[in-house]
Amino acid sequence: MSYSTFGKYFRVTTWGESHGKAIGAVIDGCRPGIELSEEYIQKELDRRKPGQSSIVTPRKEEDKVEILSGVFEGKTTGTPISLIIYNRDVDSSKYEKIKSLIRPGHAMFTYMKKYGIYDYRGGGRASARETAMRVAAAAIAKKILAEKSIKVTAYVKEVGGIAAKKIDYAEIQKNPVNCPDKEAAKKIEKAILKARGEGDSLGGIVEVVAENVPAGLGDPVFDKLEATIAQALMSIPAVKGVEIGAGFQSARMKGSQSNDAFAKKGNKIITVTNNAGGILGGISNGMPILARVAVKPTSSILKEQETVDVSGKKQTIRVEGRHDPCVAIRAVPVVEAMMILALADAMMKQEMVSRS
Amino acid sequence: MSYSTFGKYFRVTTWGESHGKAIGAVIDGCRPGIELSEEYIQKELDRRKPGQSSIVTPRKEEDKVEILSGVFEGKTTGTPISLIIYNRDVDSSKYEKIKSLIRPGHAMFTYMKKYGIYDYRGGGRASARETAMRVAAAAIAKKILAEKSIKVTAYVKEVGGIAAKKIDYAEIQKNPVNCPDKEAAKKIEKAILKARGEGDSLGGIVEVVAENVPAGLGDPVFDKLEATIAQALMSIPAVKGVEIGAGFQSARMKGSQSNDAFAKKGNKIITVTNNAGGILGGISNGMPILARVAVKPTSSILKEQETVDVSGKKQTIRVEGRHDPCVAIRAVPVVEAMMILALADAMMKQEMVSRS
Amino acid sequence: MSYSTFGKYFRVTTWGESHGKAIGAVIDGCRPGIELSEEYIQKELDRRKPGQSSIVTPRKEEDKVEILSGVFEGKTTGTPISLIIYNRDVDSSKYEKIKSLIRPGHAMFTYMKKYGIYDYRGGGRASARETAMRVAAAAIAKKILAEKSIKVTAYVKEVGGIAAKKIDYAEIQKNPVNCPDKEAAKKIEKAILKARGEGDSLGGIVEVVAENVPAGLGDPVFDKLEATIAQALMSIPAVKGVEIGAGFQSARMKGSQSNDAFAKKGNKIITVTNNAGGILGGISNGMPILARVAVKPTSSILKEQETVDVSGKKQTIRVEGRHDPCVAIRAVPVVEAMMILALADAMMKQEMVSRS
Amino acid sequence: MSYSTFGKYFRVTTWGESHGKAIGAVIDGCRPGIELSEEYIQKELDRRKPGQSSIVTPRKEEDKVEILSGVFEGKTTGTPISLIIYNRDVDSSKYEKIKSLIRPGHAMFTYMKKYGIYDYRGGGRASARETAMRVAAAAIAKKILAEKSIKVTAYVKEVGGIAAKKIDYAEIQKNPVNCPDKEAAKKIEKAILKARGEGDSLGGIVEVVAENVPAGLGDPVFDKLEATIAQALMSIPAVKGVEIGAGFQSARMKGSQSNDAFAKKGNKIITVTNNAGGILGGISNGMPILARVAVKPTSSILKEQETVDVSGKKQTIRVEGRHDPCVAIRAVPVVEAMMILALADAMMKQEMVSRS
Repeated sequence: MSYSTFGKYFRVTTWGESHGKAIGAVIDGCRPGIELSEEYIQKELDRRKPGQSSIVTPRKEEDKVEILSGVFEGKTTGTPISLIIYNRDVDSSKYEKIKSLIRPGHAMFTYMKKYGIYDYRGGGRASARETAMRVAAAAIAKKILAEKSIKVTAYVKEVGGIAAKKIDYAEIQKNPVNCPDKEAAKKIEKAILKARGEGDSLGGIVEVVAENVPAGLGDPVFDKLEATIAQALMSIPAVKGVEIGAGFQSARMKGSQSNDAFAKKGNKIITVTNNAGGILGGISNGMPILARVAVKPTSSILKEQETVDVSGKKQTIRVEGRHDPCVAIRAVPVVEAMMILALADAMMKQEMVSRS
Repeated sequence: MSYSTFGKYFRVTTWGESHGKAIGAVIDGCRPGIELSEEYIQKELDRRKPGQSSIVTPRKEEDKVEILSGVFEGKTTGTPISLIIYNRDVDSSKYEKIKSLIRPGHAMFTYMKKYGIYDYRGGGRASARETAMRVAAAAIAKKILAEKSIKVTAYVKEVGGIAAKKIDYAEIQKNPVNCPDKEAAKKIEKAILKARGEGDSLGGIVEVVAENVPAGLGDPVFDKLEATIAQALMSIPAVKGVEIGAGFQSARMKGSQSNDAFAKKGNKIITVTNNAGGILGGISNGMPILARVAVKPTSSILKEQETVDVSGKKQTIRVEGRHDPCVAIRAVPVVEAMMILALADAMMKQEMVSRS
Repeated sequence: MSYSTFGKYFRVTTWGESHGKAIGAVIDGCRPGIELSEEYIQKELDRRKPGQSSIVTPRKEEDKVEILSGVFEGKTTGTPISLIIYNRDVDSSKYEKIKSLIRPGHAMFTYMKKYGIYDYRGGGRASARETAMRVAAAAIAKKILAEKSIKVTAYVKEVGGIAAKKIDYAEIQKNPVNCPDKEAAKKIEKAILKARGEGDSLGGIVEVVAENVPAGLGDPVFDKLEATIAQALMSIPAVKGVEIGAGFQSARMKGSQSNDAFAKKGNKIITVTNNAGGILGGISNGMPILARVAVKPTSSILKEQETVDVSGKKQTIRVEGRHDPCVAIRAVPVVEAMMILALADAMMKQEMVSRS
Repeated sequence: MSYSTFGKYFRVTTWGESHGKAIGAVIDGCRPGIELSEEYIQKELDRRKPGQSSIVTPRKEEDKVEILSGVFEGKTTGTPISLIIYNRDVDSSKYEKIKSLIRPGHAMFTYMKKYGIYDYRGGGRASARETAMRVAAAAIAKKILAEKSIKVTAYVKEVGGIAAKKIDYAEIQKNPVNCPDKEAAKKIEKAILKARGEGDSLGGIVEVVAENVPAGLGDPVFDKLEATIAQALMSIPAVKGVEIGAGFQSARMKGSQSNDAFAKKGNKIITVTNNAGGILGGISNGMPILARVAVKPTSSILKEQETVDVSGKKQTIRVEGRHDPCVAIRAVPVVEAMMILALADAMMKQEMVSRS
């Protein structure tokens, strides 16, 4: 079964397995008349390409994206945009020998339970490779947000207990761990290399900020903007927690601390603090939207682990393959992508409200 | 605009404002042949009824639920079930005098921005009163889960920094703060009374456990079970964070710690620990599903706060009305309800997969 | 189960059985700021009220509609609008004695097969009474269409083989058969009375015209405007056929006859004929949208019919109750309502396209 | 914008333009464990391949379908199935010279109005080529129906006023016009050749029968099985009318004629006649489902027609390209496909109902 569509208005459907013929996406719901080229999407994709540094997986994905439909003479036509990336650098041999072992922390067990069949080569649909298509789709949505000057930025906030102390956007792409604090970045890199040396992996926290989001996005009840963002971010592989604004910290505050006081700034009513993370009652209030996600450590590790095989017999497992020692780093552009897709969807919906 | 429907298969649509004529829900997607009475739903509702103790709002809602359709001779017919509760104990006078002041931490500002019109009496759709209908709808869904012995339990884990040290389900309903630890409950009650005495409010953490959930629920990509649960829980008023299993703690773990080892127990493959919170790769693995939500302190407080009026002029505000000093306590049955609705929906979907 | 929602953007969910406590609708997706009163909706409903003439069912439904939510100080707030009509003039005694007989041409058999349970009193959800809520919901949608001067008119085109020869809108509401041709109306009335005298019923054709629909509504593939209209109209009880423009007649034409030539009229490009019924390639072309539906004769008739009982034993049946001898007449406001709802939905969707 | 998805449970999304790089479909909602090969889908596709006879368009589409995902070791995995056909035999030159002329009866005008941009080469999304993907998707759905012995058969019932007098399924694929009556087939072929000789085209009627459909499919109100089928069939290019069972003929019947008497046959309750076309109250009754569609004549004809250009200036047009003189014939496998997709969707939904 398995519906694989995000968004009710700006709809993205992804398909494809990491070790199959190709992966792809159909973007249905993009407005006509938007300039779009393969080069532009490629550039966005290249930001997440593995093999860029010593600490991310050495798999050399070419990730060469092609636009197959929905664009005519350089502009979107309003019909579905089909994107495809053929899988070229695929090596499934490592998976052959562990194919009957249940991999701890991995989707393989639950896929078998759900479907009764499992493509044991790589992660199938659960592979981080699927997220390339989210980034590609978000590259298109980004153009719609840009019309309103909305800008979304994600970065590594913490890895292995080492937290960024300052947020300097200019630093993010300068270091291999996507961290906005130069000093923290160095320590994080070291910690990751150490974990890899031990055949182990590290978890982390990614933060994302959306600036210039107009007030009024999101709905009052089940489709609160927080709820949509939570679904979007929690759908990223390895994410186990999402918080908005002060998040879990607000559980330890008093109302008089947690409430953001309103004030006037120029012609605009703003809040002095932003514990709400830009959302009140499920609807954006015009302040920056702020969210954080917890990313668990990569489950595929070299270190020997206890497990059972599919028959239930006790076994040990070491997962070779090519795996990132810290998926939080690779998650950065994906977190950005999912926030973009959530906002684009909410914006399209709001256009129906505000039309009258 | 404002779509107010949760669930794709077991669909719940709520309607109604806290100070309007009535609130209600349409449950569309319930199977035929399930026994259902007003008395049964009423009993579930009474658990969340305010006015039950000294520390929750004294508003005396009668909350008398009526079933208007979809039930014939005591059984569901498979057609939409319409539920209604008339609003009887409504006093809007307190809101009259603050109707032009923007209330800190409250939905009023964003509703005005979104819709250009706002029912200033009470919280409108943003009121906790709307959640009565979620509980009523979940009472029905609960019967479907019970067929598979699935049991969902929520409780207060922490309030004002005071955390439950042990989990004894039998205690939860014995104390006014829905806490599974008798000692912690007493301290929490005291802390809440103190905060109320200061015209202030407290935040808290609610935990929810779903037992006997079969492996195989949830989908691989955007509709991961974690993502659906996150949306469900984050749609509860005042919730600002959601985590599954080890959640944010997993961001500080190594893979070798975070991965739950598989083992055989009887005929079943289980995991020895449950850092995954019962979900791997977005699909339930047969272990208990475990989630926590952060609930911010009630925004409506008596304490004087800085704000502006709708024209942007500086003002101070004290919100009188009848408000809980800690909404986390009232959130307990709602957290339970949303987890139930999320699971019922996932279960109905899985029935299509496993049918063949 | 049974989802009971029409529309993806302007969503109408109806609930309630003809012999239950009440019927109702939730309209979710209406813009804020639209003037709305119970009186206005009541007036629209009164057009379809039975008991208005000698040839429609004498059941005296009060059909007194109440607005329970979504309207504040006379205007829509953008939140769900809940409508309710309590069932007052309900007499289920006639159904008691035939409750085990399978009624020819009636939904009772298939409901039993689908749900295994059946509210034998009246038609349950299949009753024409459910359509009152479609008319009430369309009364709201009508206001949105009116902003663009769109006007929808339905009328009886043919009954018992007697066809209207001319279309004079002014006549429609002057005669009891909703026919735009005075002379045909008289003949039709006579034919219906004759059929009723024989314990029988008649079928008919209803035509509907939507004027001033802008070009551009509808989608290229599965959601062609024709397809949406076909679904909308075919969902009306007793409808067995739908055609657009020349419809079935176009199957007997040549391309050179069927193609509508384009021409310029003032500043607008129009077509000289309208065989397309205002829709080309699934998208409105600016010409009037024209559709016709075939309504089968009322299935509940006094005349004795062969059937079986639920055990399969041969029986005869005479259905007493209170039934219209020609439902096509009662269908007129419902056809209008469903066309209005289909267009309102398409219009809201187009607002997302044309926004940029 | 343009959502291009059919089905709520067995979902098919098509993408691609007739003169673009490729066309494709994503089938999301297919159960795991179903045998599936490219060869099998290809065989189904070849039935609709043009260039098979003298009376259908000579364009030599290779229509070589590839499966890109969702199948592992010859079986569906439960994840999205991506299908692609590259466009190879594309000649857009003929369209260059008429690109500013508005083509009568064609989607080009309305696309321009809707999107403000138009791929003038071929029909774009409106091209019959898009329907290849519907046939490919239905080939998969067919396997699900086959598990319940459901069999769907479509054929040409009438072309240019020449109707089939008998229904012999064995004849359908033996003649180039897909007609179940040998004699009628010959006359129809002659009529089509004559029309083509005159630079003109013919309309026709296609009938479709679904056998062994279990009772209980479809929903009571807006999603009546008739309504879903109507939407499905009306979404086929050039279809302007849909009728179920006796259809428009039932508008001329009396209730005592139109009602199908119930009787017992073996252990089953059946109806003696089938005016209802297998559907009562929107739900299947176990009798064969019977529908007919009216297909208008091909709009692209060689014969000179009056029109205007995009500026509104009077012009004449002759459409060269490669066009079928009677699209009703090409529509046969597409009508079959859409009926299959509608039934597969209804069947999946019913699995949730009947599960308890």
